Amino acid sequence: MPVCSVTGVTVTVDPHVAVTWIERVAPGAGFERARDELAVEEPFEIRVDGEPLAVAMRTPGEDEELAVGFLASEGLIDRREDVVRVGATDDLAANIVEVRTRSGLKRDPADERRFYMTSSCGVCGKAALEFVHQESPPARPSRPIAPELVLRLPYEARGGQPGFERTGGLHATAIFEPSGRMLVLREDVGRHNAMDKALGALLLQGRWPLPGLLGCLSGRAGFELVQKASVAGLAGVVSVGAPSSLAVNLAGERGMLLCGFVRGESFNVYAGADRLSG
Amino acid sequence: MPVCSVTGVTVTVDPHVAVTWIERVAPGAGFERARDELAVEEPFEIRVDGEPLAVAMRTPGEDEELAVGFLASEGLIDRREDVVRVGATDDLAANIVEVRTRSGLKRDPADERRFYMTSSCGVCGKAALEFVHQESPPARPSRPIAPELVLRLPYEARGGQPGFERTGGLHATAIFEPSGRMLVLREDVGRHNAMDKALGALLLQGRWPLPGLLGCLSGRAGFELVQKASVAGLAGVVSVGAPSSLAVNLAGERGMLLCGFVRGESFNVYAGADRLSG
Repeated sequence: MPVCSVTGVTVTVDPHVAVTWIERVAPGAGFERARDELAVEEPFEIRVDGEPLAVAMRTPGEDEELAVGFLASEGLIDRREDVVRVGATDDLAANIVEVRTRSGLKRDPADERRFYMTSSCGVCGKAALEFVHQESPPARPSRPIAPELVLRLPYEARGGQPGFERTGGLHATAIFEPSGRMLVLREDVGRHNAMDKALGALLLQGRWPLPGLLGCLSGRAGFELVQKASVAGLAGVVSVGAPSSLAVNLAGERGMLLCGFVRGESFNVYAGADRLSG
Repeated sequence: MPVCSVTGVTVTVDPHVAVTWIERVAPGAGFERARDELAVEEPFEIRVDGEPLAVAMRTPGEDEELAVGFLASEGLIDRREDVVRVGATDDLAANIVEVRTRSGLKRDPADERRFYMTSSCGVCGKAALEFVHQESPPARPSRPIAPELVLRLPYEARGGQPGFERTGGLHATAIFEPSGRMLVLREDVGRHNAMDKALGALLLQGRWPLPGLLGCLSGRAGFELVQKASVAGLAGVVSVGAPSSLAVNLAGERGMLLCGFVRGESFNVYAGADRLSG
């Protein structure tokens, strides 16, 4: 706990949570000094075989999962065995993770023109508009998914989001078996990171790709998240928020289930309704 | 309006909104086919002086603002006069915007190592962790900001978000004068784009930098959004969601007002409380 009570200063108390002092302001009722908890956000670099590949803002704590999950969901590695070693470098800098691959990445990122803009990205660095679409096969058939299961997933996931409960500032992705069993849930300030961490955790267990599994998102379902899910082979994505037009088109093309506004007692199916039972 | 009623297909009806057919599912009550509206998301390329600079996913319609706002908020141009021309290329591809600068960008992006990961980015392409921080001066003093004004901004902004009302899938940034007058509001599937569009709209009007003005965000206040606000010279950022640890630290260092959870009758001040009156 910080001993000073100045606003604008944070003290990280665990990988996901920092504490700070705030003023709570209620016009009319005045100011009140209070302790508050924040989601930790720090820059992070992924190096692959000694070469820097990517910098991102992320919530620390699952950097190995994030690094390998990113490589897999971007189609740069194919399986657990492609990763020989992953871990912090010997540098004092704790925010660098080094991945050693067995035989390099599937594509040489240097072959592509690089860019440096994004809008909550994943696309960044693609060589041109036509590179936005990653290669990924159509999603495999799955056994029928009960609508009741779709409704239940966000509730199950919410129970595994301690960081969100404390800070209100973390996104989450959970991966479920068709039975409804939650395999993994990860939180991050970045929604793409949360998915990469969840996928990376399963890859490090030797599970990749992930046909038949369902992803559950704490927020909106943009194109890049659905694309990561597609590259992973997921049967569907369930989101509490809205999908974008391109996310719907991609899910439609790949035959994935895409559900949005999964809240309360109903939800919308944007693609793959034939995967639902009933 | 689409004539077919297949799910997984969208038809763009205006730059911001696409329509699609969905199944509304209420377990027990069955399926109902319905028309729904979605936020449009499409890839977009910025070219500067003939060279590709960035690809992003964005909502179309304000591409010129987005392009110049991105250049300005990333510190690559300084003023309106740095832009000689901005507009669609002659290509059939409508998703490419070309910016002609008077004398190039302030930095040569090619001098930096490029990366291609992000987590709802802006950081992407920075040469290393130490490049995450953009240069920007401390925010200039502003006249005292009434807490009542802070509470009012999200309500004012919400009234100018037709795309969110229709789709539930668009973020927004609004820029306000200290008097409370809204100068501009822009929506986008990407929160960073919404801010870049709003800033770019003002830059194209010859207003840049923007000392004393306030930014209002429809979502969370991450580091990169606060950094863009800082590069723009804003006096403060008002957000309906949570800030991250690094966003609080940056606002604290730069002397900016940073308010979060601005909802209902109260809000939290994370930095710059001395800018508030009362």
